[in-house]
Amino acid sequence: MEMQPGQMAYDRASTVFSPDGRLFQVEYALQAIQMGGTAVAVTYTGGIVFVAFRNLPVSSLAESGSIEKSFAIDTGLGCVTAGLIADSRVLVEFLRLEAQRHRITWGESAPFSLLGHSLGGHLQQFTQFGGTRPFAVSLLLGGFTNGVPGLLELDPSGATIGWKAYAIGRNRRAVADFLEEKIAAERTEDSAFRLAVQAVAEGSPTPFPPEALDVAILEPDSELRRLSAPEVARRVSGMPFIGTGERSKTGK
Amino acid sequence: MEMQPGQMAYDRASTVFSPDGRLFQVEYALQAIQMGGTAVAVTYTGGIVFVAFRNLPVSSLAESGSIEKSFAIDTGLGCVTAGLIADSRVLVEFLRLEAQRHRITWGESAPFSLLGHSLGGHLQQFTQFGGTRPFAVSLLLGGFTNGVPGLLELDPSGATIGWKAYAIGRNRRAVADFLEEKIAAERTEDSAFRLAVQAVAEGSPTPFPPEALDVAILEPDSELRRLSAPEVARRVSGMPFIGTGERSKTGK
Amino acid sequence: MEMQPGQMAYDRASTVFSPDGRLFQVEYALQAIQMGGTAVAVTYTGGIVFVAFRNLPVSSLAESGSIEKSFAIDTGLGCVTAGLIADSRVLVEFLRLEAQRHRITWGESAPFSLLGHSLGGHLQQFTQFGGTRPFAVSLLLGGFTNGVPGLLELDPSGATIGWKAYAIGRNRRAVADFLEEKIAAERTEDSAFRLAVQAVAEGSPTPFPPEALDVAILEPDSELRRLSAPEVARRVSGMPFIGTGERSKTGK
Amino acid sequence: MEMQPGQMAYDRASTVFSPDGRLFQVEYALQAIQMGGTAVAVTYTGGIVFVAFRNLPVSSLAESGSIEKSFAIDTGLGCVTAGLIADSRVLVEFLRLEAQRHRITWGESAPFSLLGHSLGGHLQQFTQFGGTRPFAVSLLLGGFTNGVPGLLELDPSGATIGWKAYAIGRNRRAVADFLEEKIAAERTEDSAFRLAVQAVAEGSPTPFPPEALDVAILEPDSELRRLSAPEVARRVSGMPFIGTGERSKTGK
Amino acid sequence: MEMQPGQMAYDRASTVFSPDGRLFQVEYALQAIQMGGTAVAVTYTGGIVFVAFRNLPVSSLAESGSIEKSFAIDTGLGCVTAGLIADSRVLVEFLRLEAQRHRITWGESAPFSLLGHSLGGHLQQFTQFGGTRPFAVSLLLGGFTNGVPGLLELDPSGATIGWKAYAIGRNRRAVADFLEEKIAAERTEDSAFRLAVQAVAEGSPTPFPPEALDVAILEPDSELRRLSAPEVARRVSGMPFIGTGERSKTGK
Amino acid sequence: MEMQPGQMAYDRASTVFSPDGRLFQVEYALQAIQMGGTAVAVTYTGGIVFVAFRNLPVSSLAESGSIEKSFAIDTGLGCVTAGLIADSRVLVEFLRLEAQRHRITWGESAPFSLLGHSLGGHLQQFTQFGGTRPFAVSLLLGGFTNGVPGLLELDPSGATIGWKAYAIGRNRRAVADFLEEKIAAERTEDSAFRLAVQAVAEGSPTPFPPEALDVAILEPDSELRRLSAPEVARRVSGMPFIGTGERSKTGK
Amino acid sequence: MEMQPGQMAYDRASTVFSPDGRLFQVEYALQAIQMGGTAVAVTYTGGIVFVAFRNLPVSSLAESGSIEKSFAIDTGLGCVTAGLIADSRVLVEFLRLEAQRHRITWGESAPFSLLGHSLGGHLQQFTQFGGTRPFAVSLLLGGFTNGVPGLLELDPSGATIGWKAYAIGRNRRAVADFLEEKIAAERTEDSAFRLAVQAVAEGSPTPFPPEALDVAILEPDSELRRLSAPEVARRVSGMPFIGTGERSKTGK
Repeated sequence: MEMQPGQMAYDRASTVFSPDGRLFQVEYALQAIQMGGTAVAVTYTGGIVFVAFRNLPVSSLAESGSIEKSFAIDTGLGCVTAGLIADSRVLVEFLRLEAQRHRITWGESAPFSLLGHSLGGHLQQFTQFGGTRPFAVSLLLGGFTNGVPGLLELDPSGATIGWKAYAIGRNRRAVADFLEEKIAAERTEDSAFRLAVQAVAEGSPTPFPPEALDVAILEPDSELRRLSAPEVARRVSGMPFIGTGERSKTGK
Repeated sequence: MEMQPGQMAYDRASTVFSPDGRLFQVEYALQAIQMGGTAVAVTYTGGIVFVAFRNLPVSSLAESGSIEKSFAIDTGLGCVTAGLIADSRVLVEFLRLEAQRHRITWGESAPFSLLGHSLGGHLQQFTQFGGTRPFAVSLLLGGFTNGVPGLLELDPSGATIGWKAYAIGRNRRAVADFLEEKIAAERTEDSAFRLAVQAVAEGSPTPFPPEALDVAILEPDSELRRLSAPEVARRVSGMPFIGTGERSKTGK
Repeated sequence: MEMQPGQMAYDRASTVFSPDGRLFQVEYALQAIQMGGTAVAVTYTGGIVFVAFRNLPVSSLAESGSIEKSFAIDTGLGCVTAGLIADSRVLVEFLRLEAQRHRITWGESAPFSLLGHSLGGHLQQFTQFGGTRPFAVSLLLGGFTNGVPGLLELDPSGATIGWKAYAIGRNRRAVADFLEEKIAAERTEDSAFRLAVQAVAEGSPTPFPPEALDVAILEPDSELRRLSAPEVARRVSGMPFIGTGERSKTGK
Repeated sequence: MEMQPGQMAYDRASTVFSPDGRLFQVEYALQAIQMGGTAVAVTYTGGIVFVAFRNLPVSSLAESGSIEKSFAIDTGLGCVTAGLIADSRVLVEFLRLEAQRHRITWGESAPFSLLGHSLGGHLQQFTQFGGTRPFAVSLLLGGFTNGVPGLLELDPSGATIGWKAYAIGRNRRAVADFLEEKIAAERTEDSAFRLAVQAVAEGSPTPFPPEALDVAILEPDSELRRLSAPEVARRVSGMPFIGTGERSKTGK
Repeated sequence: MEMQPGQMAYDRASTVFSPDGRLFQVEYALQAIQMGGTAVAVTYTGGIVFVAFRNLPVSSLAESGSIEKSFAIDTGLGCVTAGLIADSRVLVEFLRLEAQRHRITWGESAPFSLLGHSLGGHLQQFTQFGGTRPFAVSLLLGGFTNGVPGLLELDPSGATIGWKAYAIGRNRRAVADFLEEKIAAERTEDSAFRLAVQAVAEGSPTPFPPEALDVAILEPDSELRRLSAPEVARRVSGMPFIGTGERSKTGK
Repeated sequence: MEMQPGQMAYDRASTVFSPDGRLFQVEYALQAIQMGGTAVAVTYTGGIVFVAFRNLPVSSLAESGSIEKSFAIDTGLGCVTAGLIADSRVLVEFLRLEAQRHRITWGESAPFSLLGHSLGGHLQQFTQFGGTRPFAVSLLLGGFTNGVPGLLELDPSGATIGWKAYAIGRNRRAVADFLEEKIAAERTEDSAFRLAVQAVAEGSPTPFPPEALDVAILEPDSELRRLSAPEVARRVSGMPFIGTGERSKTGK
Repeated sequence: MEMQPGQMAYDRASTVFSPDGRLFQVEYALQAIQMGGTAVAVTYTGGIVFVAFRNLPVSSLAESGSIEKSFAIDTGLGCVTAGLIADSRVLVEFLRLEAQRHRITWGESAPFSLLGHSLGGHLQQFTQFGGTRPFAVSLLLGGFTNGVPGLLELDPSGATIGWKAYAIGRNRRAVADFLEEKIAAERTEDSAFRLAVQAVAEGSPTPFPPEALDVAILEPDSELRRLSAPEVARRVSGMPFIGTGERSKTGK
């Protein structure tokens, strides 16, 4: 990130605007998110596919399944994250708690946009009050409105925006352009899965093994289903940029 | 914003006056608001039209309806905002809660000026107490007094001012001049709508598609009605500066 | 305000004296008040006239009545303010609450000097404790002792001083000198009104329209009566410096 | 106040000693007190006279009686202050509350030395704990022990010292020397009054009108009696340095 | 650690991102961990071996058993730590308390991954809130899922990652490479023990005596069993790099 | 106090050690104590004599008795102080409260060493926690164990040390040397009194009047007895360095 | 202590790691401990001897017994300290309270290692949370396990380590080497006593009188027994480096 003269005077607290009205700590948090793996979500008729690239340690000793990028929130509610792992987990806990609170109060799943705005308000606090820093997480929250899938993107500022399909994390803009260019008007689970995998591959400069992918499917009235490693391997076999021979050599 | 010598000594806390009595963090928050889209409200006999420009991401994948600029507060109460999205939502929540509190206590809708002064007091706290920053939001709050529409503008300082029609956000001054010049003494819903749309177009350097407009109508004794995208498209068709072909290329 | 060498070492917190015993943040708050419009209060046999200049936005779209400078506190109690609008409103709320508290406890209107000292103590806290700034407001509080009108001036330091007639805000010293020179020993409501208006005009470098004046009359045992725009226009017609043609061009 | 090299490193917090063991903020508070008017208290057989110079605004519009320098605390208890007006009032409130607390608990007036030490402890807190500043007030507290008058001086450090007669505020040392030189062993109310007025006059470089003097008499078993303006004028007529013609031109 | 220009502007608080999105205090905590001894955990069919190098003081007076690196958490739950001793103990207390809380609430041992994520959330707080520093501890938490052993690594950021076998502390990368290279697909307790000891020896530049090793075995449904010094000595006798003659001369 | 290079980096908070392990604020507090008058305590068979030099203002108007250096704590418990007057009073209040608390709980006078350690713990807090400064007081606390007198010295660090006789305040070392040199093995009240007075005189560069001495006697089972001014004058008459003619000219 | 370039940027808060992972305030606290007297503890069959050098003031007036270095905690529990006296006392109070708490809860003496880890956790807080400093104390805590004596060393970081015999304070390393070299496998109370005294003498550059030694013996099931001055004098007579003639001239 190119620094401007004087920038350093305003960039060390969430509670300070720069003269041109910027909150640098929020921008730096976005920078931290860019350092993590790409994550993509694509809606299709009846569901949502979440695919995320895991920064696998360069070791066969690692349990790849322990690096979670997609999370079940409640029945018909799930999300995929990019950014700091520990920050992500804190936000997922927030979402799960809010979802349970709504369920207990109203006896039904929380609408995903309500949940998203609630999380947005939580994120905003960390951009306005002192003694803390913004969360370094972008998140695509998925859910359904009368069976129609929807996605809400949240970033460190707490802003929300809805998408049919979108990308967060490394190379987010290029991957989103790829999605927009390749996406079909009608999408099945399979075409959405393939599109999402290809998009994540677009964001990666080198081939990677199937276990580098965290894949999950969300359908109405059921929990997020994370695909097992063998299932992912089977479904991606033959797709470009994915292979077992050339493990990416980006260490933890 | 042109910096004066010595300005940097006083511009990093809401709790510090500069030697000439300025609160720079409040001014910088106004600067942040200038970076967002223009929003306009115009009263007419029996109602208020709110029109705001959405900074649409350059992507057909985005759900334009998810970027809300106008918000229902309570029966006969609504607002349009300019500035940081997450900050706006926090203030809208404040207004809704205050409105409910008034309704529960007094059994009637809160007068919009009472609500506005209450919000002004809330905004002021963030310009006087440390460990925080001002809200980067301007807001036009609309309501009715005996059926007569009124607008109250709020800015980051917490100051309030009443208007027949006004503009906030990008190019606010030029758009307000346009409004003053073109406004008719008597206004119907339709003439107010057209005036508001033209004013927003004045604030935009390039043509934009209809879905870039968030349009809402407020009438007494009913909730704010946000116009659907097709309804907006139908009503603006043929107006200058608005078209589907040349999407503005300002990214998110 | 001319800065002295070394001044900047001591001028960024209410909690720090300079070596010569000054509290610069209090002085800077006074500077902020100088930037607002002049306000004048003149007592007369049986009442008090409050006249304040409103910094009207340069727009016919503004509701001039929404810019309040004089405020009713309780029966026979009122004030006029100069300085930051949002700060003023916070102090007026303080006065109203204190007045109600006194009424509920003692079953009578609070003596205006008691109320003023209470507000003075509140203002003082903001000059002694950290994490905040002084209020940028001067205020003339009016009330009656056995039917005799009195005025108490409050400034950001929390100091109080009583007056027969006085001015706050822009050009306060010159306007006060004008008042002292022109004031008659005996004053009727009308002569006090005319003196106050002329004094405010003295503080203004250019002619202004009648709606730029916020005028209010306080009499014992009744609420502060703010004059309607037409009533003001009627009573000031023919007075120098006031006219409809040459609107002052000081924007909001 | 002459600054020493390095002084600025230690002079911006009450909680920091300089290498030679000084608390600069306390010294600067004393400097602030020097800027206010002189105040004098003189005991005599059976009572105490308090005389203070009011920094009258240069205006006949001011109510001189509203600038209070001497304050009743309780029966047979009173004080005179020098320094910041709003700070003084806060301390007077403290004394009044402590006096009432003692009366309610023990059914009698508080001994003035007990009250003084209690105030001293309060003042000390503001020299030891952070986030605040010392009070810029010196105060002479008067009371009686078995009918014998006594005075206790308090300064911003919270230190106390007893006096037969003493001066605080502007030119305190010179005025105290004057008192010591002129004081008679036996003093009546009138001789004490004249001595106190002459001492205050000593502290003033120019003549001043009678209403510039705040005069009060304290006797055992009664409230402090503040002399009315005419009574003061009558009693000082003919004394040097005091006159109506040459109003001192020190503005507010 | 090589410093970059400007790094020092962002590296003194957990609550500040650098412009490229880094949290330097977390990175410096990792640096502190590198200064401590290597610790290794290796799973095998039916259990986990923990081996850690103790930085023994150079003195026969020390009770080597008092330097604990592996800790029992609950039945079938244990961990090994690297980094600051006192920080480690605080985290172990956290884990023990969480485990008891789970046992009391649910009547069973806590799943080790649940416990690990709970600790991860705790660690994260110390990277986001001010007035504190991250914990300088890495930790390998071991437990069982249906009798199958598992390991979760936690670092100062609060991130978690699962392993079959892994190393923390000094020379962690080299030791982990050694593990990956030498590990057999099937492992008995003995082969896992030998692998772990050899791996720790890899991380040490010089020979060390048996008592420098803290060895513990974790099996399902029983407490972590720390091997006695004689038992360790017996089992490592004859292994390279380990001997009694050449005590490492790294003082406390 | 000679400053070392780099000292200023570590000397502005009680919560910071310098690289060589010093707490400069504690040392500066000791410096403040050196600026106050010398105080001496000498035990004798059956009692303790406290003698302190009062920094009398240069004025016959002062009530010398109002400057207290020795204080009764409880039956058979007393102390003498050097340093800031207001700080001393706060500590004396602490001691009195602790003594009452002990008496109420246990029905007997508190052992003086218990009381001293309790005060030491209180003083220590002000050297370890932020937002405050150490107390600038040294104190000699006296009491009896089975009728045998004892003295405990407390300084700003909270350290305690027992003495048969000792000096605090200005020229403490020289005065203590004098005491050690002149003290007799057996001491009566009178010889202890004379020794203490001579020691205080040793610490004073110029003669001083008897009323400059605050003298008190503590005996078991009775309150501290402060000698009246005439009694002091009578007992010191004829002693060197003490006289009425040459009042020391050190102002307040 | 040699400073490295850049060290000063990281050494003024317990809450900040340096780039190489050091906590400088903890290191500076250790430096403060080095400035105090040496203390030694040696276990023997059936007990522990604690010997500490008191920095006696150079005065026969001091009560050497008032400078305590060894402290009874509970039956069979005691400690010796080095470092700041007031800090030590705070920690001893912590240990005594914890011991009582354990006794009340479990009806038995607390195991000394449990107590030590509890103190270690307390010390750790002061190295991680802001607004405070580490304790400048090292401490050897002694107790028994089934009658076998044990020692636990605690330092400002909160780390603990067990010893058969050890030294803290001035010249700690040299004294510990002496201990290791001279210690016999089997030790009686007398041989342990002589070893400990000789070790303390090793840490002292000059001879010192017997009363400079604080000696205490701890045996199971009884309170720590501090030896009286005559008893110490009797037992050390004839030992080198100890004598009455040449009092060490290190002042307080």
